[in-house]
Amino acid sequence: MLTPQAFFEAVQKVNNTTLTYAASPGMSGLIEAIQGYYKKLGVDLEPDDILITSGGSEALLLTYLSILDPYTEVIIPEPYYPNYTTFVHAAGGVIRALHTGPEEGYRYANKKRIESLITKNTRAIMITNPGNPTGVVLDEQEMRMIADIAKKNDLFLVCDEVYREFCYDDKYGVPCMARFRDIDDNLVIIDSVSKRFSACGARVGCVITKNKELQQAILKFCQSRLSVATLDQLGAAALYSVEPAYFKECKEIYRRRRDTVVSCLRKIPGVKVEMPMGAFYVMATLPVDDADKFQHWLLQSFDDNGDTVMFAPGAPFYETPGKGIDEVRIAYVRDEKELERAIEILAAGIARYRKEVMGE
Amino acid sequence: MLTPQAFFEAVQKVNNTTLTYAASPGMSGLIEAIQGYYKKLGVDLEPDDILITSGGSEALLLTYLSILDPYTEVIIPEPYYPNYTTFVHAAGGVIRALHTGPEEGYRYANKKRIESLITKNTRAIMITNPGNPTGVVLDEQEMRMIADIAKKNDLFLVCDEVYREFCYDDKYGVPCMARFRDIDDNLVIIDSVSKRFSACGARVGCVITKNKELQQAILKFCQSRLSVATLDQLGAAALYSVEPAYFKECKEIYRRRRDTVVSCLRKIPGVKVEMPMGAFYVMATLPVDDADKFQHWLLQSFDDNGDTVMFAPGAPFYETPGKGIDEVRIAYVRDEKELERAIEILAAGIARYRKEVMGE
Repeated sequence: MLTPQAFFEAVQKVNNTTLTYAASPGMSGLIEAIQGYYKKLGVDLEPDDILITSGGSEALLLTYLSILDPYTEVIIPEPYYPNYTTFVHAAGGVIRALHTGPEEGYRYANKKRIESLITKNTRAIMITNPGNPTGVVLDEQEMRMIADIAKKNDLFLVCDEVYREFCYDDKYGVPCMARFRDIDDNLVIIDSVSKRFSACGARVGCVITKNKELQQAILKFCQSRLSVATLDQLGAAALYSVEPAYFKECKEIYRRRRDTVVSCLRKIPGVKVEMPMGAFYVMATLPVDDADKFQHWLLQSFDDNGDTVMFAPGAPFYETPGKGIDEVRIAYVRDEKELERAIEILAAGIARYRKEVMGE
Repeated sequence: MLTPQAFFEAVQKVNNTTLTYAASPGMSGLIEAIQGYYKKLGVDLEPDDILITSGGSEALLLTYLSILDPYTEVIIPEPYYPNYTTFVHAAGGVIRALHTGPEEGYRYANKKRIESLITKNTRAIMITNPGNPTGVVLDEQEMRMIADIAKKNDLFLVCDEVYREFCYDDKYGVPCMARFRDIDDNLVIIDSVSKRFSACGARVGCVITKNKELQQAILKFCQSRLSVATLDQLGAAALYSVEPAYFKECKEIYRRRRDTVVSCLRKIPGVKVEMPMGAFYVMATLPVDDADKFQHWLLQSFDDNGDTVMFAPGAPFYETPGKGIDEVRIAYVRDEKELERAIEILAAGIARYRKEVMGE
């Protein structure tokens, strides 16, 4: 997907000037644009509730530096985005994994299991909704249940909602935990323009919270690193002016890509895959002994008419050792023809690997 | 100073495309440009020695997250840039201040005093050369002495050299600790385009080290936050193509500003000020009881024909409680006329404050 042209047009207006530091909490035009976007989702935000960051990544790092002390814990359903580990560890924290797996379609909203992980050291529950790498989307009832656990146990609820617009079943709408106003003091939303507007290289995200004390703590870190890049903030603000039709079109494109990938994967003997409901990833269980070993073999010892294929092996998405060995994450971020060809190569690779390496 | 037009021209070439993540260590064109710049300083760098960061700020944060464990120590001469505290504390570290003050012109290169601060928990010595807020520049012999201490005690030497081009005495040349190749394993250079090219809002810096283990540790953090903004990296690479005349012109402008500010300050009764040799700051001791209180009074209760003046009170630049109370940092980043007027207002403010508030 192209980044909407509005981004480049806004950037190109800046000329013959001095690029001074922007305001540490973010440029007011961008903050207003984000307020407007959330208003359409039914969420009223004050300017102070939004702190602009260098991508969702910095939003996560500054959040964890602000809420964690050494050896305090964050509960995260596994499999999860592996960089979360770095951000939690940078703050001295520990991840307590909420186990899920392909056998239950990676659905993690289980009250008993979540509550069983809470200790006196727990500071936060973190969810990614829609999920990376699983594509799991929570329904309204599940969101409410997790919100209640956070509230009852006085925990932060860190919601990474950067894939919010990518939900392929209308029953989910556009998920946003911030609609539950009774958890204002618990909630931290991680957001970004990267996926919403196909603008990963802009590095513009934000952290949203109505918890005043947390706002102050994160703001201190924002002040210490002075500001986020000026041109990218101007471009990002312009992105928020794209028409709603843009999101509709994107969603249709990705829905077709998802359908293509899943239906192709299902034709490969021994491959198990659930239909993901959101984001642009699918976790598949492959009939191989070790997906990482298989990936290396695909790159070094295999080709199909000169082509091979890459995916993300599953194990690094799990905290629990030994899990995800035969799973892979496939990102459907190419066009349908390329995806069809990629899965065709994968099928040929699996067949030959099973014969030549696994000796079957 | 305007940001050189080369920045905007490079950015404006990008159009009608997808802003994908850039490479986590930085874009190759920018890394090559920085290699070329260092080559002219007499320093050979490999591409792996340079990791592009979101300003010098991120370079510092990632360095300290990589080299510090909880309760380990960094020796920093005080007064120092207050945000260093945030970066060291984010990593769980502790700052051991090397005391200096106006009575010795803030010169900190004292072997005995530095060595007396080294404990079994010391991990690094950090210097800012030229200095913010003091304007102190180390001579060759002082640099060598500090390098020797780091080497002998197996400590990292973190050198923030973002003001390198702003040295007003030719005997200092363009200081660069990386010329001492025997401390390759100890040295970490913090660098940025912010001051060099008047491009603070680009948020492009880098961390430079030839220590392979440290490179790997910092690279892991770089990977976790994916990349630095693409457009700003393209703009920054173009900045490195400006002619050497650009630096010469900048230096002359700032030298005149410095001379103006210092000569105006010296005319105010009771003000003490040393001639700073680098950067674009001057520390002045004012004949007031409390510079912070005086600043508030200037903003709230004083005007000179409708104007007032702002500076940075000195105490936050010190780790040691009670120090810097009557000191201020003045940044000479405006044109000479404005600076003359600002110091005129300051003089009037001091006279009236001493009479009305201090009762003299």
